[in-house]
Amino acid sequence: MKSFITLVEVGPRDGLQNETKILSANLKYNLIKKLSQTGLSRIEAGSFVSPRWVPQMANSKSVIKKVMSNNTNNVRFSALVPNEHGMNDAISTGIKEVAFFTSASETFNSKNINCTIKQSFTRLNVISKLAKKHKINLRAYISCAFFCPYEGKVQYQKVVNIAKKLVSSGCSEISIGDTIGAATPREVGGLLKKILKHVPNKKIAMHFHDTRGMAISNVKESLEFGIKCFDSSVGGMGGCPYAKGATGNLATEDLAFFLNQMGYKTGVDLEKLLKINRWLSKYFMLPSRVAKAGLP
Amino acid sequence: MKSFITLVEVGPRDGLQNETKILSANLKYNLIKKLSQTGLSRIEAGSFVSPRWVPQMANSKSVIKKVMSNNTNNVRFSALVPNEHGMNDAISTGIKEVAFFTSASETFNSKNINCTIKQSFTRLNVISKLAKKHKINLRAYISCAFFCPYEGKVQYQKVVNIAKKLVSSGCSEISIGDTIGAATPREVGGLLKKILKHVPNKKIAMHFHDTRGMAISNVKESLEFGIKCFDSSVGGMGGCPYAKGATGNLATEDLAFFLNQMGYKTGVDLEKLLKINRWLSKYFMLPSRVAKAGLP
Repeated sequence: MKSFITLVEVGPRDGLQNETKILSANLKYNLIKKLSQTGLSRIEAGSFVSPRWVPQMANSKSVIKKVMSNNTNNVRFSALVPNEHGMNDAISTGIKEVAFFTSASETFNSKNINCTIKQSFTRLNVISKLAKKHKINLRAYISCAFFCPYEGKVQYQKVVNIAKKLVSSGCSEISIGDTIGAATPREVGGLLKKILKHVPNKKIAMHFHDTRGMAISNVKESLEFGIKCFDSSVGGMGGCPYAKGATGNLATEDLAFFLNQMGYKTGVDLEKLLKINRWLSKYFMLPSRVAKAGLP
Repeated sequence: MKSFITLVEVGPRDGLQNETKILSANLKYNLIKKLSQTGLSRIEAGSFVSPRWVPQMANSKSVIKKVMSNNTNNVRFSALVPNEHGMNDAISTGIKEVAFFTSASETFNSKNINCTIKQSFTRLNVISKLAKKHKINLRAYISCAFFCPYEGKVQYQKVVNIAKKLVSSGCSEISIGDTIGAATPREVGGLLKKILKHVPNKKIAMHFHDTRGMAISNVKESLEFGIKCFDSSVGGMGGCPYAKGATGNLATEDLAFFLNQMGYKTGVDLEKLLKINRWLSKYFMLPSRVAKAGLP
């Protein structure tokens, strides 16, 4: 009997923020509602960043307010918050989980969120205090945990140090991201071996991109290390900002197909996901392979 | 120190035969020549089937004759032969390896090569005698070894029985195909566990399709069972005839990237493969992910 694996659906945030076509608040709400009826237990619904930086997320507040007041499926929703301002926005929606973003690469952090890794911890501490006060769960992303588009290979120890610091700063879960989709099970196993000495497996989620077709083999490797939580994006939405025309986020359909067939429980209804894919493909090019090929 | 893995490039046969655009003999020769300069040690160069059935292969005889008389890189070339007629054509070109095709599914065999599995062994016996006489190496494909587009899940024991019979019929290597790209490591491990009790790992090659994004994880699983030979198609050429718009053969670039990064030796120059991909993409849509994303 294999165990239960939790999928964190990041399409409405991580997927959408990399799509140029802007979804109206209404369509975005419909997408999240449909996703919440598939058996997915966790959905990242938006982010409270400046609309100047990410126009796609400008309607996050109204969308998330509506989502929170209609959460009949008991889904654990989350939103990305970059700073105190965003955190206060999140609090005002009644959301019960926020996610903080940092990177294992200085160059990437500086280009992506315009601060050093050290400065991002100053921002995190403010968020963490507010989270504690308002009983909001705090998740953190470590992006470029394996390779950086600017710095190349990232040292495992760097990621371990950041993960430890995130945990001691109040983060209950660390999502480790292969942001440019360049890792293979060799790097995944290499990092997990080190990190699990300091952070228990139940606090680790893996966030793979399928840019080079390696994501599923990386999921398999992580499972062998006892990881039970994976991020994915419906349809594989999001593309890859670092390689034009390439795909990015691992598709939720592909991940669910793999886990189901391997004998794991996910609680996710794959047929319903494929129906959402057909609907969503009216708006976006969706690279999910299982959706394209259909179920065998 | 990890071991050497052999790649069998099947693009010029298995890839091309599923492309509707017909390549001239000259272009096909150029493709094979370029591939033979990448470090690939084995290339399937064509097939001796009726041009009425596979128009793309009508020029195989002239192409392979030219290939054989200019084989300066000591590549082991092979050609698919369905019957005695095709075998005699193959012999006339001086090729030193032929491949025979059968299936683990009766329905697939009957629809694909218009005979029962039993009848295909009658054809094989004729080919095998000629191969022995002319000192030609004999390889065999078992297609639909995991799932059949008509019969669904295929029993492991069926594949084991066919593999044993192929070996006793004179085949020195059995290439086990996930023809519709539906297997995951669970099925791959399940079959290999059984088959390796009867056929040694050095006689087994795995032939994965990346239709649902599972191919690389299946390669990894096979490696763990000691398999050292994998088929792939440059660019992922070939599509999937059983799911319109979906991809088929695992791309050689993706396989070589994975193996290189995992620390295996392949002898293959990935940069050269990517150059061929750029040239070949003038003629075909090539789904290789590594080629689309580039090297990290």
